[in-house]
Amino acid sequence: MITVTAYNTERAYCQTIFDVGELATILSTWPTVWIQVTELEKPEVLKLITETFNIHQLALEDVLTKRQRAKIEQYGEIFFIIVHELSNGNEINSRQLCFFLGKNYVVSFQFEELQSLKQVSERIGSNSGAIRSQGADYLASAILDGIIDTYFPILEDLGEKLEDLEDAILEDPSRKVIGDIHQVKRQLLTVRRTIWPTREVLNTLLRDASHNLSGESRLHLRDCYDHAVELIDLTETYRELGADLMDVYLSSISNRMNEVMKVLTIMASIFAPPTLIAAIYGMNFNPAISPYNMPELNWYFGYPLVLITMLLASLAVVVFLWWKGWLGAMGKRSNKY
Amino acid sequence: MITVTAYNTERAYCQTIFDVGELATILSTWPTVWIQVTELEKPEVLKLITETFNIHQLALEDVLTKRQRAKIEQYGEIFFIIVHELSNGNEINSRQLCFFLGKNYVVSFQFEELQSLKQVSERIGSNSGAIRSQGADYLASAILDGIIDTYFPILEDLGEKLEDLEDAILEDPSRKVIGDIHQVKRQLLTVRRTIWPTREVLNTLLRDASHNLSGESRLHLRDCYDHAVELIDLTETYRELGADLMDVYLSSISNRMNEVMKVLTIMASIFAPPTLIAAIYGMNFNPAISPYNMPELNWYFGYPLVLITMLLASLAVVVFLWWKGWLGAMGKRSNKY
Amino acid sequence: MITVTAYNTERAYCQTIFDVGELATILSTWPTVWIQVTELEKPEVLKLITETFNIHQLALEDVLTKRQRAKIEQYGEIFFIIVHELSNGNEINSRQLCFFLGKNYVVSFQFEELQSLKQVSERIGSNSGAIRSQGADYLASAILDGIIDTYFPILEDLGEKLEDLEDAILEDPSRKVIGDIHQVKRQLLTVRRTIWPTREVLNTLLRDASHNLSGESRLHLRDCYDHAVELIDLTETYRELGADLMDVYLSSISNRMNEVMKVLTIMASIFAPPTLIAAIYGMNFNPAISPYNMPELNWYFGYPLVLITMLLASLAVVVFLWWKGWLGAMGKRSNKY
Amino acid sequence: MITVTAYNTERAYCQTIFDVGELATILSTWPTVWIQVTELEKPEVLKLITETFNIHQLALEDVLTKRQRAKIEQYGEIFFIIVHELSNGNEINSRQLCFFLGKNYVVSFQFEELQSLKQVSERIGSNSGAIRSQGADYLASAILDGIIDTYFPILEDLGEKLEDLEDAILEDPSRKVIGDIHQVKRQLLTVRRTIWPTREVLNTLLRDASHNLSGESRLHLRDCYDHAVELIDLTETYRELGADLMDVYLSSISNRMNEVMKVLTIMASIFAPPTLIAAIYGMNFNPAISPYNMPELNWYFGYPLVLITMLLASLAVVVFLWWKGWLGAMGKRSNKY
Amino acid sequence: MITVTAYNTERAYCQTIFDVGELATILSTWPTVWIQVTELEKPEVLKLITETFNIHQLALEDVLTKRQRAKIEQYGEIFFIIVHELSNGNEINSRQLCFFLGKNYVVSFQFEELQSLKQVSERIGSNSGAIRSQGADYLASAILDGIIDTYFPILEDLGEKLEDLEDAILEDPSRKVIGDIHQVKRQLLTVRRTIWPTREVLNTLLRDASHNLSGESRLHLRDCYDHAVELIDLTETYRELGADLMDVYLSSISNRMNEVMKVLTIMASIFAPPTLIAAIYGMNFNPAISPYNMPELNWYFGYPLVLITMLLASLAVVVFLWWKGWLGAMGKRSNKY
Repeated sequence: MITVTAYNTERAYCQTIFDVGELATILSTWPTVWIQVTELEKPEVLKLITETFNIHQLALEDVLTKRQRAKIEQYGEIFFIIVHELSNGNEINSRQLCFFLGKNYVVSFQFEELQSLKQVSERIGSNSGAIRSQGADYLASAILDGIIDTYFPILEDLGEKLEDLEDAILEDPSRKVIGDIHQVKRQLLTVRRTIWPTREVLNTLLRDASHNLSGESRLHLRDCYDHAVELIDLTETYRELGADLMDVYLSSISNRMNEVMKVLTIMASIFAPPTLIAAIYGMNFNPAISPYNMPELNWYFGYPLVLITMLLASLAVVVFLWWKGWLGAMGKRSNKY
Repeated sequence: MITVTAYNTERAYCQTIFDVGELATILSTWPTVWIQVTELEKPEVLKLITETFNIHQLALEDVLTKRQRAKIEQYGEIFFIIVHELSNGNEINSRQLCFFLGKNYVVSFQFEELQSLKQVSERIGSNSGAIRSQGADYLASAILDGIIDTYFPILEDLGEKLEDLEDAILEDPSRKVIGDIHQVKRQLLTVRRTIWPTREVLNTLLRDASHNLSGESRLHLRDCYDHAVELIDLTETYRELGADLMDVYLSSISNRMNEVMKVLTIMASIFAPPTLIAAIYGMNFNPAISPYNMPELNWYFGYPLVLITMLLASLAVVVFLWWKGWLGAMGKRSNKY
Repeated sequence: MITVTAYNTERAYCQTIFDVGELATILSTWPTVWIQVTELEKPEVLKLITETFNIHQLALEDVLTKRQRAKIEQYGEIFFIIVHELSNGNEINSRQLCFFLGKNYVVSFQFEELQSLKQVSERIGSNSGAIRSQGADYLASAILDGIIDTYFPILEDLGEKLEDLEDAILEDPSRKVIGDIHQVKRQLLTVRRTIWPTREVLNTLLRDASHNLSGESRLHLRDCYDHAVELIDLTETYRELGADLMDVYLSSISNRMNEVMKVLTIMASIFAPPTLIAAIYGMNFNPAISPYNMPELNWYFGYPLVLITMLLASLAVVVFLWWKGWLGAMGKRSNKY
Repeated sequence: MITVTAYNTERAYCQTIFDVGELATILSTWPTVWIQVTELEKPEVLKLITETFNIHQLALEDVLTKRQRAKIEQYGEIFFIIVHELSNGNEINSRQLCFFLGKNYVVSFQFEELQSLKQVSERIGSNSGAIRSQGADYLASAILDGIIDTYFPILEDLGEKLEDLEDAILEDPSRKVIGDIHQVKRQLLTVRRTIWPTREVLNTLLRDASHNLSGESRLHLRDCYDHAVELIDLTETYRELGADLMDVYLSSISNRMNEVMKVLTIMASIFAPPTLIAAIYGMNFNPAISPYNMPELNWYFGYPLVLITMLLASLAVVVFLWWKGWLGAMGKRSNKY
Repeated sequence: MITVTAYNTERAYCQTIFDVGELATILSTWPTVWIQVTELEKPEVLKLITETFNIHQLALEDVLTKRQRAKIEQYGEIFFIIVHELSNGNEINSRQLCFFLGKNYVVSFQFEELQSLKQVSERIGSNSGAIRSQGADYLASAILDGIIDTYFPILEDLGEKLEDLEDAILEDPSRKVIGDIHQVKRQLLTVRRTIWPTREVLNTLLRDASHNLSGESRLHLRDCYDHAVELIDLTETYRELGADLMDVYLSSISNRMNEVMKVLTIMASIFAPPTLIAAIYGMNFNPAISPYNMPELNWYFGYPLVLITMLLASLAVVVFLWWKGWLGAMGKRSNKY
C-alpha cells in the first residue's frame, strides 16, 4: 500500500496507489511529493520503488530492519534518515520511521501507523501553517518535528512518576518502590538511547544539507534541534534524580531497620532484668538449713519489695534508653515515614 | 501593557503605552529604545509588535512557551535570547525572560515581574554607571548581568544549607536529614539546568555578535561569562559535597545501628548466664532420693554462693566484651554524634 | 597452510598452496587475491610471505602476538588491521584476525578458524552480492562486516541474561544472582574492550584510506561503522542496566534483612511479657508469713487470671506492632519477592 | 600603603611610597617596576592608581571582590590575572592575589600578606637567579611560580592524612574516621577548585601573551604549567583514594556489625537450650499422681543427667556454629581490625 | 660515574669515563653517542655536563627532582623527556629516567639502575636488531620501548590478583579481602598515573619531533604508542573490575549478615514458646484452693501432654519458618560462599 501526497501552494492531492509506475508522472507534475510506504512485506513493490528512486541496497536493508539506531546517511544528493516515534504504554514503544529526502520528494517507510505522520498529512490537507508553500526539505523538517514532539509527553510522564516515587520513598519505602524506580530508570535509558542519536541526525542534517535547505526549513530544523537538546537535558536531569532516589531509598531502608533493631533492643533490655530477678526467687534453696539461704522468701514484705525491685530495674533500663535518645522510635507509626 | 524606556546620554524617557503604532516614532527619535512587554495574553498586541519588529513565528512561539531552556538564536541581524531569573522560596522559582536585541532596540517579554529588569530600569533612570552613554548591546549585557546576579544568593543559600546538613549529620543523623539532602541536591540540579545553557548563551553572544558589540559591551559580557563560569564551578562543587554527604549519612546510620546491636548483644549476653543458673536451681529434683540430686540446695552457703557465681558469670561476659572494646558504646549519648 | 582465493567478475579460484613462490604468479594474473595464512607456527613460511608482501618486522610481531588490541596501521600504501571475532560459550572467546590490505590483495593471518572468514569465502565462491565485481578494498570491508556481525548475538545474549536477572532479583534475590550480575558485567567489559577500538579502526580506515576506497566499499564500511556505533550504544546501555541491577539487588537484600529482623522482634516481643509473668509466679515467697507475699497464689481464680493477663500482655504487644505496621511482613512467603 | 620595587640588572630599589604621583617618574626611570598595593580600603589611592595604569572599572571591581575564581583577562596590551595562595591550618586558607602585567610593570593587589610575594621580593633584593636581568613578564612568571609552589605542601599534607586514614580504617574503623575522610575530601575539593582555573590561567597566558614573553619567561611559565598539571594529577588521584576509602570504611562497618551479630547469635543459641531444659524441670507437675509426671525428678542420677544433657545441648550448638565457621569471630579483639 | 656508549653500524664502544672533557672528542668521532649519568650527587660533574650539552637550568632541576610526572619538553632542537620504569614488589616501585635527545646523542640521568636501560645496552653490544644501523632517535625509541615493556608484567600481576580476589569473594568474603581489593585499586591508580602522561610523551614526540625522526624510528615509536594505549585500556578495565568487586564484596557481607540474622531468629523463635510453657507450669499457684488453679499439674498425663505441646509449638514455628523459606540457611557451611 503506497499513499501519495502531492501538493503545491494552491492545492493538495492525496491518493492510495497500487501501481508504482504512476509515481513518475506524479513526480514530474507536482513540486513536492510525499510517498508513504506502509506495507514493507511485498518485495516486488519495494524493488520497483527502489529502482524509481535509485535507492541503494544498504539503505533498503536498513529500511527493512527493525530497531535500528537513528541515523542520517547521504547517498549522492539524497539523504536517508532513520528516526523513531515513541509512545507510552506499560513499556515505552518505539516505532521506526525511515525516509529519503530528495530534491522534490520524501519517501517514507514505516512498519506501523505513526501519529506524527498523520498530523503532518492533516496539516498538508488543511493547508495550516507554511507547509504547502514550502518544498520537500520543509516537509522533512515537519516530519522530524512531529517525531520529536512525541517525546515530550513520555518525559513528562516519567517526571511525574519520579515525583510520585519521591513522595512514596519519604513517606513509606515499601518493597514495590525499588522495582518502580528501576523501571523508570530503564525507561529513561530507552528514551536516552532514542534522543541522543536523533539529535545527531538533526545536527548532521543542518550541517551537511545546509545548501539544500531553504531559510524557513533551516529555522524550523534549528527549532527541532533546540527541542532535542532540551529533551536530552531533561532526560539527564531525570536520570540523576532517579539515581538520587535510589540512594534515598537505601538510606530509608537502613533507617527503618535501625528502628526495628531499637524496638527489639528496648523490649529485650526492659524484660531481661526482672526476668532474672524472678528466676532467682524461683530457686529452691532450703531456707531452713541456714539463715543465708534466701531469707527474703520469708520476709514480711519480701514479695512487694521484689516487685518494686523489678520495676526499678526496668525503669533504670528505660531511663538509660531515654538518655540515649532511643525511645522516640517506639512512638511513631511507620506509615509516617 | 507595554513599557517603553528610551534614552540618550543626556536624558531618559519612560512611559507605558497602549498603542503599538507610537513605537515607530520613538524608535526613529531615540538612539536606544527598550520595549518591555509584560502582558503576553493579548494576541492582537503581540501581532502588532511581531510585525513592527519583524519577529519570526518560531521565535514568538518560544516567547509564549514557559519553561524553555535558555538559548540564543540569530534571525538575520537580530538576536533572540531566552534566560531565566531565579528567586528563592520553598522551592527555587524560575522566571523566564525572552528578549530581542536589534541594532538600536531591545524588546523584552516576561510573564511575571523580574527584579533584575527593575534594577536595570532604575539604573537608566538614575543615570548610574555607563549605561546611558552606551547602545542597545550594552543594555542587553546589563540585563544579562542582572539575571546572572540573581543566581548568587541562591547558591550561597544552598551552600549554607549544605554546611548545616554537614553539622547535623555528624552530630545527629536523624531521618529528616536525608530528605533535606535530597532537596538540596534537587535544587542544585535545577540551578545547574539553568546556568549551563545560560553560559552557552553568553559564549555564543560573545562569539557570534562580536562585530555588533561595542568594546565596553564586550568587556561587560566577558565579565558576565566569568560569573557564569564561577557559578557553574560552585554548583558542581556543591553537587559533589551533596553526594559526599549522602555517603557520610549512610555510614552514620550504619554506625548507629552497630551501636544499637552492641547494646542488644551486651544486654542479652550479660543476663543470659545468670538466668540459666537461676533456672537450674529452680528445678524440682528431689534431693531426698539421692545425694547427687541438687545437694547445693541444702548447703549452708548455697544461696550466697550461687549469687556470687551469677555475678562472676556476668562479670566474665563484661570482661569479654570490654576486651573486645564494645563497652564504650553504652556510655555515649546519641545526640553526641 | 596457505589458502589462496583469487577472483574476478567472471570466476573464482580457491586453492591451498604450499609453495609461497606461486603467489607472485597468482598476484599478477588475478585482479583481486586473498591469501589466508592459518599456520602461524612455521617461521620459514612467514619469512617468505613477509618478503613477498614487503611486511614490516613490527607488523609481523603484532601478527604473532595474541590478545592484541584492535588497531589499524599504515605502512606506505598498505594498511595493517587487527580485529577480533567474538564467540559465545561459558566465557566470551575472542579470536584474533590480522590482515594486510594492499592495492589488489588481502593477506590475512589467524590462529584459529574464524566463522566470519568462512562466510566471506562462501560468498566469493557462490558469487552472492557484489563482492566478485569489486576489488580488495571491498573484500576487506566484507571481512570487517563479518567480524562485526559476530558481536550482535553476544550482546543479544547478554541482554537476555540481564532481563532474566532483573526478574530473578525482584522475585527472589538469592546469593547466586550477585555472581551472575558480576559475570555479565565482566563480559560486557570484554565486549566493550573489543568494540571500541574496532570502531576506531573503521573510522581511521574511512578517513585515511578514503582515496583508495571505491564508492561501494566506502558505503559498505560506513554501514559497518554504523553497526559498531550501535553495538557500543547497546553495550553502554547494558552496562548501566547492570550497575542499576546491582543497586536493586543490594536494596532487596536490605529489605529481606529488614523482614528477618521484624520477625525476630515480633517473636521476642510477644513472648517476653508472659514469660516474665510466669517467672514471677514461680517465685517461692512464703505466703504463710505475710498476706503481702504472693497472695495471688491462693486466690480462687489466680491461675486463670494470670493466664488472661499473659494473653493481654501479648495482645498489647501485637496491637502495638500492628499499629506500627509490621505484622504484614510475617504473612508473606519469601519467594514472593 | 604602596610598595614599589624597581630594578635593573645592576641594582634594585625598594620603597614604600604614599604619593601615587611619584610612580610616573619611577616608571619612566627603571626598566622593570613592581607596585604592590596592600591597602585596598582607601578609594582615593585606588582611583589614582586606576588612572595611572589605565585600569578598567570591571577589573577594579574584581580586585576589590574576595573569593574570585582564578582568571586571566586581556585589556588591550595589559593582562589582568587573579590567582590564590593557599596555606594550611585547620581549614585551607585561600588568599587572593590580583595583578596587572604591563609592558614594563607589574601592579599587584592583595588583601593579606602573601608568603610567595615576599620570597619574590627577597630574590630581587638578593639578586638570586636570573630575575634582575629579565623584564616584567619574568617577574609575573616568578610570582605565579611562587603561588603554585604553595600548593605542594597542602597536597602532601592531604596525602599523608589519607595514608593515616587508610591505616586507621583497616585497623579500627571508629566513628571519627568518617568525619575525617569527609574533611579531607572537602579540602581536596577546595584545592581542586583553586588549581584547575589556575592551570587555565597559565595556559591562556602562554598562548595569548606569547609574543610579549621572552624565551626565558616562556620556559619558566611552561615549567609552572607542568607543576599545575602535576598538582591536578595528584588531586584527582587523592580524590579517587578518598572515595575508595569511604567504600572500605562502609564495608568495615558492615564487617563489624556482622561480628556483633554473630556474638549475639552465639550467646543466644548457646543459652537457649539449657534454659529451656532447666525451665522444664522447674515445672510443678505432681509426680505422686502418675508415674508419667516427671519421674526424672525422683531418679537417683536425675540432676547430674540433666546437667549433662544441658551441657550436651550447648555443645551441639557450639559444634553447629563451629561447623558454620562463626566461632573465630569471638576470639578476636576489635582493635585488631 | 658516566658511562659512554658510542656506536656505528660496524662497531660499538662502551666505557666508563671520569673526565667530562673526553666527551667532546667522542661526540665528534661517533655518529651516535649515549651518555648515561648514574651519579647525580656530584654537582661539579653535572655542571660540566650541563655546559657540554647546553642544558637549561630548569631541565636540570627536573633531572634532580624525584617523583616528577612523565613529560616531554623541547629546548631548541633538543628534546627533554622524563619517564618511569615500574617494577613489582610489595608495592609498585617507580624509578625515574630523564634523558635528552639531541641530533646525534642521548644523555640519560637515573637515580637507580634500570633494567630497561641495561637491555638496550646489551642490544647495542650484541648488535641485535636494527639499533646499530640507526641514529640517536632510534636509540631514544628503544629506551622508551624498554620502559613501557616493564609495565606489562605489573598489569598482568594485578589482573591475576583481581581474578584471585573474585574467587575469594564469591567463596569466602573474609575481612582480609577488602584490604586486598583496596591495595590493588591503589596500585592501579599508581600505574595509571604513570602510563597516562607517558602516552602523552609518546604522542607529543611523534607529533613535534616528526621531521627529526627517521622512518624506522617513527614506526617503532608508533608501536610504543600502541602499547601504551593497550596498557591504558587494560588499566581502565581493571579499575572497573576492582570497583565492581567492591560492590560484590559489600553484597556478600550483607548476604552473610542476613544468614546470621536468620539463624538468630530461628533459634529465638523455636525456643521462646516451649520456654514460656515451661515457665507457666513452674508457677506456684495453689491447686488445693480451687479446681481452676493449675489442675493440669495433677493430671495423670499432665507432664507428657505438656512436653508434646512444647514440641508442637516449636514445630509450628519450624513449619512457619520453612514456609518462609528460611531454613535452608542453617544447612550450609559458610565456606561455601
